[in-house]
Amino acid sequence: MEGPRRLLLISNSTLHGGGYLGHCQQHIQSFLGQKVKRVLFIPYALHDRDAYACTAREKFESLGYGLDSIHESCDPVEAVKKSEAIFIGGGNTFRLLKALYDNSLIHEIRKRVLEDGIPYMGSSAGTNVATISINTTNDMPIVYPPSLKALGLVPFNINPHYLDPDVKRTHMGETREERIRQYHEEPNTPPVLLENHLKCFHLHQGLREGTMLLVEGDKATLQGVTGARLFLRGKKPTEHEPGTDFSFLLTDSNLLNP
Amino acid sequence: MEGPRRLLLISNSTLHGGGYLGHCQQHIQSFLGQKVKRVLFIPYALHDRDAYACTAREKFESLGYGLDSIHESCDPVEAVKKSEAIFIGGGNTFRLLKALYDNSLIHEIRKRVLEDGIPYMGSSAGTNVATISINTTNDMPIVYPPSLKALGLVPFNINPHYLDPDVKRTHMGETREERIRQYHEEPNTPPVLLENHLKCFHLHQGLREGTMLLVEGDKATLQGVTGARLFLRGKKPTEHEPGTDFSFLLTDSNLLNP
Repeated sequence: MEGPRRLLLISNSTLHGGGYLGHCQQHIQSFLGQKVKRVLFIPYALHDRDAYACTAREKFESLGYGLDSIHESCDPVEAVKKSEAIFIGGGNTFRLLKALYDNSLIHEIRKRVLEDGIPYMGSSAGTNVATISINTTNDMPIVYPPSLKALGLVPFNINPHYLDPDVKRTHMGETREERIRQYHEEPNTPPVLLENHLKCFHLHQGLREGTMLLVEGDKATLQGVTGARLFLRGKKPTEHEPGTDFSFLLTDSNLLNP
Repeated sequence: MEGPRRLLLISNSTLHGGGYLGHCQQHIQSFLGQKVKRVLFIPYALHDRDAYACTAREKFESLGYGLDSIHESCDPVEAVKKSEAIFIGGGNTFRLLKALYDNSLIHEIRKRVLEDGIPYMGSSAGTNVATISINTTNDMPIVYPPSLKALGLVPFNINPHYLDPDVKRTHMGETREERIRQYHEEPNTPPVLLENHLKCFHLHQGLREGTMLLVEGDKATLQGVTGARLFLRGKKPTEHEPGTDFSFLLTDSNLLNP
């Protein structure tokens, strides 16, 4: 019996001027609600897992949730089985995906999220691995995972648009677009959603939110303030404002058999 | 009997304001000399191989060399066996490396270059695959090669620094450094040479050359005008001017047994 799939896929974990997850904390609280008491954190994308868990724990405790980091558990698969909610943090996507495979977590996370319906949150790399594959990551392939196929919680790719805090002009659309276009030169490649696409973005105090995709069952909605750009193979990219209903991206038979 | 290894590893195939290979054509002529008559071109990094071969052919013919593109040969391995010189062009590094594996060319190119001593030129992705692995590419993993191990013609990594022509400020050192630092968090990772590193670079008419690494047997020298930055695991990165002797990077037992 399939429960309602619930995902909050965040583009960036920090934005200029805000603390860790500061720009999306209200979305997190609204997403997790009051039923969830503890969140299982997966810190595999960064090298220093202890420090990473510490940062995440501080944030989630401030929001009223307990946090268990999976790297502190002697049985990661069992930790996923018992989890009420999962949060996978950002870092290097290759390192993260390899560790998910190495710890035999792909199947179990998919089961918990798609069958049991527990809430899944990801930011940056954690958003990337929630999609059908990491083929559109911006990260450096510092390790070699056994596959680029990821959790497949949604049947398309996401390309989170990291903001370098020291870069005043952030429109790097052409280069990124060129890369995604190259991806779509390959046969049968799925849609790519470029989150946090900014045609003309200036860093000022009032603009701290990035982009999030909220998935509730078969409904997907773009949240945040900065919009996204959608790439379909062989079609011209299209711009989408916050609030856009992306549910049509979910209707793909690949979802349960990636 | 091992011949003298000869490599010309170019960071970028085009620089702002110059045509294809325009900034390094004198280095190419000096490297190939007059003995070489025809160059074998490997266009696998781009999707449109015909168009790519056309561009490369035009350039090499203007320099006095014939050019055969490997994709026009019915037997790629045989084409490598017969080649006098090899040039691998830039594009997507994952696509390139996968095609080298798919066509069973890794072993044969290594043999031609390391044992028979034919000259090898690479630019961008073609420089990346000449190194020990593509772990430090900047490209998007649009396909999944059977390994990240590359030709291993040198026992270290190179990270070519692509210049986006529309980017006025090109110092993106912190982000790139952070990625290379993450690579070196992994055990036993080799040195990384960031080519074309620019601390403060302004695009003006007089500054059109990028960086090249010239390898002649056991001697490696940095060429061009823009310098490089060397990353050794656990050490602080160091800046190096054109003319630097990098031969010490070649003394690694990994070379012939990558």
